[in-house]
Amino acid sequence: MMDEEVLVQLRNIVGKNRVLTRGNELYTYSFDATPIVQAQPDVVVMPGDTREVAEILKLAHVNQIPVIPRGSGTNLAGGTVPVEGGIVLNMTRFNKILEIDEKNLTATVGPGVITAEFHKAVEECGFFYPPDPGSMRISTIGGNVAQCAGGMRGLKYGVTKDYVMGLEYVLPTGQILRCGGKNYKDVAGYDLTRLLVGSEGTLAVITEITLKLLPRPETKRTLVVFCHQMVDAARIVERTIAEKIIPATMEFLDQATMQVVDDFSHLGLPRNVAAMLLLEQDGSEEQVVRDVDRIAEIAREEGVADVQLAKTAEEGAKLMAARRSALAALSRLRPTTILEDATVPRSQLAQMVEAIIQISAKHQVQICTFGHAGDGNLHPTCMTDERNHEEIKRVEEAFREIFATALALGGTITGEHGVGMAKMAYLPQRVGEGGIELMQAIKQAFDPHGIMNPGKVVAKAARSRVVVRNA
Amino acid sequence: MMDEEVLVQLRNIVGKNRVLTRGNELYTYSFDATPIVQAQPDVVVMPGDTREVAEILKLAHVNQIPVIPRGSGTNLAGGTVPVEGGIVLNMTRFNKILEIDEKNLTATVGPGVITAEFHKAVEECGFFYPPDPGSMRISTIGGNVAQCAGGMRGLKYGVTKDYVMGLEYVLPTGQILRCGGKNYKDVAGYDLTRLLVGSEGTLAVITEITLKLLPRPETKRTLVVFCHQMVDAARIVERTIAEKIIPATMEFLDQATMQVVDDFSHLGLPRNVAAMLLLEQDGSEEQVVRDVDRIAEIAREEGVADVQLAKTAEEGAKLMAARRSALAALSRLRPTTILEDATVPRSQLAQMVEAIIQISAKHQVQICTFGHAGDGNLHPTCMTDERNHEEIKRVEEAFREIFATALALGGTITGEHGVGMAKMAYLPQRVGEGGIELMQAIKQAFDPHGIMNPGKVVAKAARSRVVVRNA
Repeated sequence: MMDEEVLVQLRNIVGKNRVLTRGNELYTYSFDATPIVQAQPDVVVMPGDTREVAEILKLAHVNQIPVIPRGSGTNLAGGTVPVEGGIVLNMTRFNKILEIDEKNLTATVGPGVITAEFHKAVEECGFFYPPDPGSMRISTIGGNVAQCAGGMRGLKYGVTKDYVMGLEYVLPTGQILRCGGKNYKDVAGYDLTRLLVGSEGTLAVITEITLKLLPRPETKRTLVVFCHQMVDAARIVERTIAEKIIPATMEFLDQATMQVVDDFSHLGLPRNVAAMLLLEQDGSEEQVVRDVDRIAEIAREEGVADVQLAKTAEEGAKLMAARRSALAALSRLRPTTILEDATVPRSQLAQMVEAIIQISAKHQVQICTFGHAGDGNLHPTCMTDERNHEEIKRVEEAFREIFATALALGGTITGEHGVGMAKMAYLPQRVGEGGIELMQAIKQAFDPHGIMNPGKVVAKAARSRVVVRNA
Repeated sequence: MMDEEVLVQLRNIVGKNRVLTRGNELYTYSFDATPIVQAQPDVVVMPGDTREVAEILKLAHVNQIPVIPRGSGTNLAGGTVPVEGGIVLNMTRFNKILEIDEKNLTATVGPGVITAEFHKAVEECGFFYPPDPGSMRISTIGGNVAQCAGGMRGLKYGVTKDYVMGLEYVLPTGQILRCGGKNYKDVAGYDLTRLLVGSEGTLAVITEITLKLLPRPETKRTLVVFCHQMVDAARIVERTIAEKIIPATMEFLDQATMQVVDDFSHLGLPRNVAAMLLLEQDGSEEQVVRDVDRIAEIAREEGVADVQLAKTAEEGAKLMAARRSALAALSRLRPTTILEDATVPRSQLAQMVEAIIQISAKHQVQICTFGHAGDGNLHPTCMTDERNHEEIKRVEEAFREIFATALALGGTITGEHGVGMAKMAYLPQRVGEGGIELMQAIKQAFDPHGIMNPGKVVAKAARSRVVVRNA
């Protein structure tokens, strides 16, 4: 339980109504989008400006109380679960787009701005902000920055880190700092901006974000390819890139995912094909037409089941929405859905998909795979039931093998979801003990009392709370 | 003087011929491309592989000997001057392009590969590596990574950090580590790759670099605009970007620079115009033609003196070469040339150029300005004589005001040259005392004995050696 005196001070800082302590309120903040992990905070606080964040952090620092910054809680690695209790810092009141600077091609926002709303706002001014994580209708830009969120356009456009130019942030001591800004070139000291991107709330609280914008592409087109074998899809991707064509998105769904998505979205997808490839190209009209035509030609040469060009932008959007519904569709099948994101260098994609099929058969677990074929970021997704401990053990064993395979292929344990709690055990295999020690020393430099999102990423020892489940 | 026992051990590691200790050899390594600063190393060592680097570092770590990694020494901020003596680690033997991975759009190189040679090699395979620092015919990729080198394509294509995907590096303890790799998405822990990029040899020695490649653009075209006033050039840039056209390069030269360049290159540039804008667009044929035509139209609408489209690729290349010769041309005028790189958000460009003209008049120093109009990175260049102490004082005062103005306009003290020794005094104004403290703690995490390139960037106290001048 939190000291009553601390609660009084928190109420003084943000106002009585913005300090939540009731059981049902705390329960709501005891989990994020990650299955299985859950832990209750002592209090939820909703600051409204940077000064309030600084006051809260000072208080927490002095009293050594954990602070867990949180946006919409769409995290898939347990990153916003308050595993050691403490203060959940709900940042959703920082929801203003502060500036769209058309001259410098930048936008400055509060971390609580919803990603899709930001997309809409910049598109209305003729700009384009490429990162489009699956959760973008709910997720916040602050969450995207904390996790270095990816999305469907990784190969051509990069991910969140490629768009963060500047930050305002608050250290655990309450010190308010800035790094970066609107300069396209800036080499004044170590790149703290990039260090904070993807640091998962373990170093500081981000209170303002300056993002790079691109001009909105003139047009885009969508192409769907149905393949008899997964390896055909991989070959089409390979040949496209070998011809130096870089599509904006190259998504794939395996047969199992396609069927579930079709049951959910009623698109009339074929049932007898092994994989579906969903491609989108953007740019100038001539270039897009030329690229899409050439990709269709390559697909036909590979003897695929069918190639369909979306006739209208709406039809294209509908297909992309179907791909986006994959997680929602899969999660209806069984009580627990574990969405992973093992990633490999793109050239290893077909081999990785094949390995996942074999591993899931071996352990008799149900794993569907979909993901980003352009950047090698796969989402093997397991439909299971967390109440069945024996099955969960098999699921864990299967994922252990999946990650080991990804690493053996030169890949990584997480492409866009983050380490959080879920991947801590795998991190040393990816970055080595030396890498872990460096990261721990960096963590120490920012957060000497270890109050920032403890028990995550490179925590030395997690004093995990007993997981509570009310429902 | 270096302990004889250490020299024996160094010779055992790399071989007798690769340990340089003679006076004339040490003199050669006592400066880089930065004027005024100079200090002699105790020894120059030329390792041939990562294991040798690790052995050298272990030895240096135990004996607390400074280690200064160095490529071609084209640094402009004193970054490779061994200000506390010690070992200069000449990395030029790491000059192999280890792999061009066409499937994953990456290349892996040793840090000693010459930038322009790397350009050539990837272009032959149909790829494109955009960073093109002014020194690219001499500079190494390792130096580019250590400094986060920029170049002419910052706005459209970014800078070195946007292309570094993975590194092998050696810690001062001799531990060999890797970060990143060939994955386009990877959020496994803090982004050590981006932290090492631009760390100026103060954290670790980089021994292998994996870079991202782009497909080579189909075509490019060059356009030259001669303006009656600097503000016209700024307005053309502004209107171009407002129309969502992002040229690959937008270089400008002021009148003084133009004249000197023309004396040097004999291009027949007009003498009576205030500024020259050099634009290059790349991409698909249709897009490039459309963009270049539109920019020419905008320029004519602004009533410029002349607009010329390069008729052939050779003519375009010749114009770009003239721009690249600016530093060489200017440096012929007087004994000492100080090339700076104050940077501002692009929208402040005209104001910054105007301020530089006023400041140089006020202090009666000769400053020519050229640079990257697209990304706000200016190169005010002072022609002076370091033997004239009174004049140097005025030069220093002028630059102090130039940096203060850049910071007041939301800019930075260095866009692409780095902090090194030259900008240490200005760094706290840019990143704040809090930022300095964080950077010092990060430095401490990597390099607890402070042996890596001491006296640079965020050094606590520099034990500067007496500067020696043999010539």
